[in-house]
Amino acid sequence: MTSTIRDTIDRLFDRIGALSEAGPGYTRPSYGALESRAHAVVADHAATLGLTVTRDAALNLFARLPGADRDAPPLHVGSHLDTVANGGAYDGVAGVVGAVALAADLVARGVRLPCDLVVTVTRAEESVWFPVSYVGSRAALGRLGADDLRARRSDSGRTLAEHLREEGGDPDAILRGPGLAPARFVEMHIEQGPVLDAAGEAFAVVDAVRGGLRYRDARIQGVWAHSGGAPRELRSDAVFGLADLVTAMDRGWARSLAEGGDLAVTFGRVDAATPEHAFAKVPGRLDFCVDLRSVDDGVLESTDALLRAEIAAIERARGLRFDLGPQSRSRPARMSPALVAALVGAARERGVSPRILASGGGHDAAAFALAGWDAAMIFLRNQNGSHNPDEAMDLGDLAEAVAVLAAAIPGIAATPRSAA
Amino acid sequence: MTSTIRDTIDRLFDRIGALSEAGPGYTRPSYGALESRAHAVVADHAATLGLTVTRDAALNLFARLPGADRDAPPLHVGSHLDTVANGGAYDGVAGVVGAVALAADLVARGVRLPCDLVVTVTRAEESVWFPVSYVGSRAALGRLGADDLRARRSDSGRTLAEHLREEGGDPDAILRGPGLAPARFVEMHIEQGPVLDAAGEAFAVVDAVRGGLRYRDARIQGVWAHSGGAPRELRSDAVFGLADLVTAMDRGWARSLAEGGDLAVTFGRVDAATPEHAFAKVPGRLDFCVDLRSVDDGVLESTDALLRAEIAAIERARGLRFDLGPQSRSRPARMSPALVAALVGAARERGVSPRILASGGGHDAAAFALAGWDAAMIFLRNQNGSHNPDEAMDLGDLAEAVAVLAAAIPGIAATPRSAA
Repeated sequence: MTSTIRDTIDRLFDRIGALSEAGPGYTRPSYGALESRAHAVVADHAATLGLTVTRDAALNLFARLPGADRDAPPLHVGSHLDTVANGGAYDGVAGVVGAVALAADLVARGVRLPCDLVVTVTRAEESVWFPVSYVGSRAALGRLGADDLRARRSDSGRTLAEHLREEGGDPDAILRGPGLAPARFVEMHIEQGPVLDAAGEAFAVVDAVRGGLRYRDARIQGVWAHSGGAPRELRSDAVFGLADLVTAMDRGWARSLAEGGDLAVTFGRVDAATPEHAFAKVPGRLDFCVDLRSVDDGVLESTDALLRAEIAAIERARGLRFDLGPQSRSRPARMSPALVAALVGAARERGVSPRILASGGGHDAAAFALAGWDAAMIFLRNQNGSHNPDEAMDLGDLAEAVAVLAAAIPGIAATPRSAA
Repeated sequence: MTSTIRDTIDRLFDRIGALSEAGPGYTRPSYGALESRAHAVVADHAATLGLTVTRDAALNLFARLPGADRDAPPLHVGSHLDTVANGGAYDGVAGVVGAVALAADLVARGVRLPCDLVVTVTRAEESVWFPVSYVGSRAALGRLGADDLRARRSDSGRTLAEHLREEGGDPDAILRGPGLAPARFVEMHIEQGPVLDAAGEAFAVVDAVRGGLRYRDARIQGVWAHSGGAPRELRSDAVFGLADLVTAMDRGWARSLAEGGDLAVTFGRVDAATPEHAFAKVPGRLDFCVDLRSVDDGVLESTDALLRAEIAAIERARGLRFDLGPQSRSRPARMSPALVAALVGAARERGVSPRILASGGGHDAAAFALAGWDAAMIFLRNQNGSHNPDEAMDLGDLAEAVAVLAAAIPGIAATPRSAA
């Protein structure tokens, strides 16, 4: 790799890392002024490289390096710059910084690409601010609706349209579309998981982004009783009901993996700790959420069916009532096999044989893939997970991934665009 | 039963029910002014019946009706008048009102008892205010220690000694003892459970008060991770660990009952709902409490051993770390078989064959039994559990229990005092 790659990475992390609300960690709300300033840092740097910088109505940033064939479908490379509250330095930023470093390297080496390279910096990828997934990329793709624009930001209570306008965007133009024509999108991103760090591998290639099926506000209604006085057969204990459900879903999860299915089951929040709960009371209520993820919509469906069947059995056995509340879904997204192959091939030429992983978290790449683009991701080894101030990553791993992507571009540009 | 019993019950519930902090429900803190005023209501009424009213250094109230043999061990009948915060009208109060009604009935009918009857109103039975069990009765029995007097009240932060002095008590005198000589104690109390209401029975006789073995501040330490990104085999999920433990203890509980043991297992509080928990995160921490109750100390010991063995297995299987925190215990207390037999016999003579139950909750009667007294309890049918504003009870059930107790007194007085 060239020193340009590493220099660009170092410089941009410094400048973007200076932009945050008070700590700990990093806070750049979606469609906030700090996100806009981070975009300006990238626009600035891209302009000094001679790239043509434009923004769309949703304020997504595009910095274009012309290729030999201006009519060929361009290659977009990028990620996002907003963060969750008290997030880390790398989630999103790594992919943007890597994209700029890639462009800088190509410019420095005078490489003429077969197609345009478009450094692409989306807005509002983190759905904690607005309860809408992939706001910026879906807007760029002409897939954001009027309902989405009415969503309110969790901190301000004001709508997406208002915040967007305040930063200079144009909600009406977003709705008019038509959005970008299908092309290719590659995103570098921290893995957010322990696999690469545990395996001692710098990066991996992602072949699918898991979809999710979630109940965020589920409740078990039991009967409050005295912990000493209520006999076993007269109890309707909400905690025992949850334990039954978790162990049943644990068995179902193991079975699904044994059958070759892809699945993750998480009960991330369990609340039997209100002021009404006490050590000497049989708990009469419990709130929980459950998050099912898979690259396979069929597995999500069958696991949801299992969940409901187990609940019905537990209700009968324990005299409990479950209310799962609203279901929310995100569709699994398959990455382009041709792009995955091109990335793996380029890595192998550099002497590395990267593993192929599914992404558990949602990413802009999924929004592009679901809109018919050929998409792929490179996952970067990281420590301490993501969405917290302790996010960690070796900048050398990112530099290596950028070099692999640079080497892969001719192969990527040569793949025929798949049918949408 | 006589109209005196019912009239006394009605009048005293009215007067005591008027004494509470703001609702909902009833709030009379232990060693608070409202508890003192409720005691004064009873003292007042007892005096009009001609009973001799005294208070000890801990402000327990004794209203004595002389019997034929003033040297015979007296029969104490009573309960307490403090409540939990936002408690109900009946927990404690029913037993006090019933005791006064019993005395009123005996006075009205001119019955000369073989021994003294002592209406006994304890202080501070509810351990939510001071983290000390049976404060008043243990003080009366010479079993309260200097450490107990330094316990701080949950609302005020001030010590038991300070609150006691403020209401007119004498902490130093409590420590000097020696406490009441062993005699007999009978307590009427709402069941606090669903058994009698479900069975359609007005009252039952209690033959044991369960002891407890508790971990109120237990914690499971796992590893936070991304719900989509962390593979099954690399997870240390605190919620799955809890589910394993609850289902294992559920099986152990069923086994213990099948073998004829007495046991109740409750996880009354489960907290995986801090700001750190989220639907998209594998929970890295969970706080819980567990409450084991039994009339048999051996069952408590073996269930505690089971709990620890299951935890060790779960720690190994899931890479979790459990910290049970401090253990707190209360000893099971056996009621006097002779007193139980006398109460059952008197009920049968009135055409009712009451069931014999263990009490799951702790009561003053347990403190007396553990101090070597012959003790027994009558449980009263109630609805909606206890320690909440919706506590409900039919006053007619209490009147019937008082009549049974009145009829049982000659039999009780005739039983030889058991060896302490």
